Amino acid sequence: MKNYNKEIIWHPFTPQYDLKAAIKIHRGEGVYLIDENNKKYIDAISSWWVNLHGHCNQYISNKVSEQLFKLEHSIFSSFTHEPAQTLAERLLTHLPNNQEKIFFSDNGSTAVEVALKMALQFWHNKQDEKLIFIAFEDAYHGDTFGGMSVGARNVFNNAFSKLLFEVVHIPLPNTENFNAVKDLLTSLVSSHNVAGFIFEPLVQGAAGMKMYEAKYLDELIQIAKDNKVITIADEVMTGFGRTGRFLASDYLTNKPDIICLSKGLTGGYLPLGVTSCADFIYQAYCDKDKTKTFFHGHSYTGNPTACSAALASLDLLEKTDCWKQIQMIEEEHLKFKESLKSSCELTNKLKQIRTLGTIIAFELFPNTQASNQTGYLNTATEGISEFFLERGIIIRPLGNIFYVIPPYIIDRSQLRDVYDVVKEYLNKL
Amino acid sequence: MKNYNKEIIWHPFTPQYDLKAAIKIHRGEGVYLIDENNKKYIDAISSWWVNLHGHCNQYISNKVSEQLFKLEHSIFSSFTHEPAQTLAERLLTHLPNNQEKIFFSDNGSTAVEVALKMALQFWHNKQDEKLIFIAFEDAYHGDTFGGMSVGARNVFNNAFSKLLFEVVHIPLPNTENFNAVKDLLTSLVSSHNVAGFIFEPLVQGAAGMKMYEAKYLDELIQIAKDNKVITIADEVMTGFGRTGRFLASDYLTNKPDIICLSKGLTGGYLPLGVTSCADFIYQAYCDKDKTKTFFHGHSYTGNPTACSAALASLDLLEKTDCWKQIQMIEEEHLKFKESLKSSCELTNKLKQIRTLGTIIAFELFPNTQASNQTGYLNTATEGISEFFLERGIIIRPLGNIFYVIPPYIIDRSQLRDVYDVVKEYLNKL
Repeated sequence: MKNYNKEIIWHPFTPQYDLKAAIKIHRGEGVYLIDENNKKYIDAISSWWVNLHGHCNQYISNKVSEQLFKLEHSIFSSFTHEPAQTLAERLLTHLPNNQEKIFFSDNGSTAVEVALKMALQFWHNKQDEKLIFIAFEDAYHGDTFGGMSVGARNVFNNAFSKLLFEVVHIPLPNTENFNAVKDLLTSLVSSHNVAGFIFEPLVQGAAGMKMYEAKYLDELIQIAKDNKVITIADEVMTGFGRTGRFLASDYLTNKPDIICLSKGLTGGYLPLGVTSCADFIYQAYCDKDKTKTFFHGHSYTGNPTACSAALASLDLLEKTDCWKQIQMIEEEHLKFKESLKSSCELTNKLKQIRTLGTIIAFELFPNTQASNQTGYLNTATEGISEFFLERGIIIRPLGNIFYVIPPYIIDRSQLRDVYDVVKEYLNKL
Repeated sequence: MKNYNKEIIWHPFTPQYDLKAAIKIHRGEGVYLIDENNKKYIDAISSWWVNLHGHCNQYISNKVSEQLFKLEHSIFSSFTHEPAQTLAERLLTHLPNNQEKIFFSDNGSTAVEVALKMALQFWHNKQDEKLIFIAFEDAYHGDTFGGMSVGARNVFNNAFSKLLFEVVHIPLPNTENFNAVKDLLTSLVSSHNVAGFIFEPLVQGAAGMKMYEAKYLDELIQIAKDNKVITIADEVMTGFGRTGRFLASDYLTNKPDIICLSKGLTGGYLPLGVTSCADFIYQAYCDKDKTKTFFHGHSYTGNPTACSAALASLDLLEKTDCWKQIQMIEEEHLKFKESLKSSCELTNKLKQIRTLGTIIAFELFPNTQASNQTGYLNTATEGISEFFLERGIIIRPLGNIFYVIPPYIIDRSQLRDVYDVVKEYLNKL
């Protein structure tokens, strides 16, 4: 007989010591996840930033269901199908004008791996080897070895750091450091063989929703372009309306050469990744010499079922109503931010409140006791998830930062319910 | 206006020079993929080795469809749901007895990345740093940087080789070299800080369906175990009945510590990966010190929709009828192999015919002209895909090797249709 422990599933990003039982979600309904005891939770973080149109959205579920009876999956090398073709065409109408080709994969990590490999092999195919990537400090680009390599060196990858390839990390630009950051980047791209510069545009998600201004990123991209460095926007978290525009890159004048998409791509339904690129990247792969082929592919690349979810999600995202909702959330976030600022008692407890589009982040002063971990493991928010869960809201902190990133279908009163609990939480701190 | 090239999708593993139009698949039906002109193709390679029960299987499609209206997705950190729990429990009943925990991810590459990281952090958490992996020559373990690192250095990853971490590759064991391979492994594991030994058990898929005997692998695993090296079976391609048993590891006496699953896991429907492990691995992560947490997770980890496909596929795989089919395919493959051997004219054209379970592989003599590429790019099979497509069969070679790995629902007469075209192809060589 096997010895079944209480929990046989090893959950992601979850400390296993003194493990609490996971909450068993029974069904989804709009903004709610509902557990086995019929308790409803507002999914205030869109299930790790993926859900756009609510859970079990009838329109999307119907469309995906239809696809399952027509073509659930097909090999995608030498073959194609309507869902992938239509999705590629429709995505291009939303992406910056310089984007021309769509490469499918299965999630955000693989979308980044594809981008890194596209950039490296671009140089390799041109027989001009460049192996260095530049990324931002505190960056997060996924959990596979390539993604971890361009990410910050921190508690997430400490055990693997010696096996990660070398990447130069530069500070996130702000008013104070901008000239220094520009000088640093200029010096790096002119003196090193830099293959690419990868960034989460405007918002660093896992770092704690750290935000920075488009004007700074625009200038940094210009420096990269002037020095023929390939620019890669990791829009996995920021894409599909999260920042108030279709992409965070839509706030930029200088467009990235490669863009990584996932999360909101399928509206929160199914894993799917996309890496798009400019034509000049692609052209380096069009050669009689077959060794210049891009040898990357996953078994389920271009999966029609996942593509059908993405198409249905786009149908909803393209409606004016959806953008009215995005705008409503943006306005409510701003109003709430102002209301907090007007209360001395509460603002004293907050180091910063940040908003962009549908994102609002609350940064507490980090707990600086000697026994405390820094960054992601900081205990300033200890117990916050339980506090919100008791009140029917799903929140998951990032160290001393917590945030609200709701599905776009949330209504004003549900949002205000969430804000009320934020205030209650801050009050009891 | 955007300049839409004829093909805006960049397809996986596909040379882009002088690109032929991809065949547009309109629908799937059992063993067939059917194109927009209503031409039917027998999917003789199960859409890159994923499909088990045929395309658009009514039972699976209905089950997945039901799930879409109940719970399409939920965050999986601190939360769980019936489809993942039931799947984890049912998988454990099929896995070797030493397997105790199930970690979900999205595809085969990520299942391998999780395995490598589990092994590395196991040693890191025990403050006994070990960073070396041993793998087989010609190994393929996926296209992300970790997977590429443990894979063979070849045309697939030539452009990235300097960014891959160091791995020691040992020859695949056979009658002639076995003692030397044993000695090599023994010397490596006793003199280096070896974290793990990863292998595709019994069949190296992408290498060209290279097969080797269980008895040899059993002895190599024993050497690893004797030296506290973590053993990792990459069963992404071999799992779920492909080799005639549930896992290729079921042919082994010594069970691997970690097992990677994907491809057939969802019956060919949706991307999903699983990494299972023995309890001693997991225990190294159960510690008050939160830095010992396994910080790995993808947004769609444990996706209930994909889990529902896996559960429905398991329902079918657990039926006696399915195993009768697997046995029928195995017998037919063997009979066909024997029939080829009895024809001198045909066997002279083949370097080797290999079978295991539902797999039959035909190795042609490689084209050795100076202009020819070796391995995957060898041109001995040039034009083979077109030859089979004209005759309504999907085949995709691996260099000078081609193979048939059909969905289990194929019937005897469909199989024989495929064999007839194999013979026709060999005859015209």
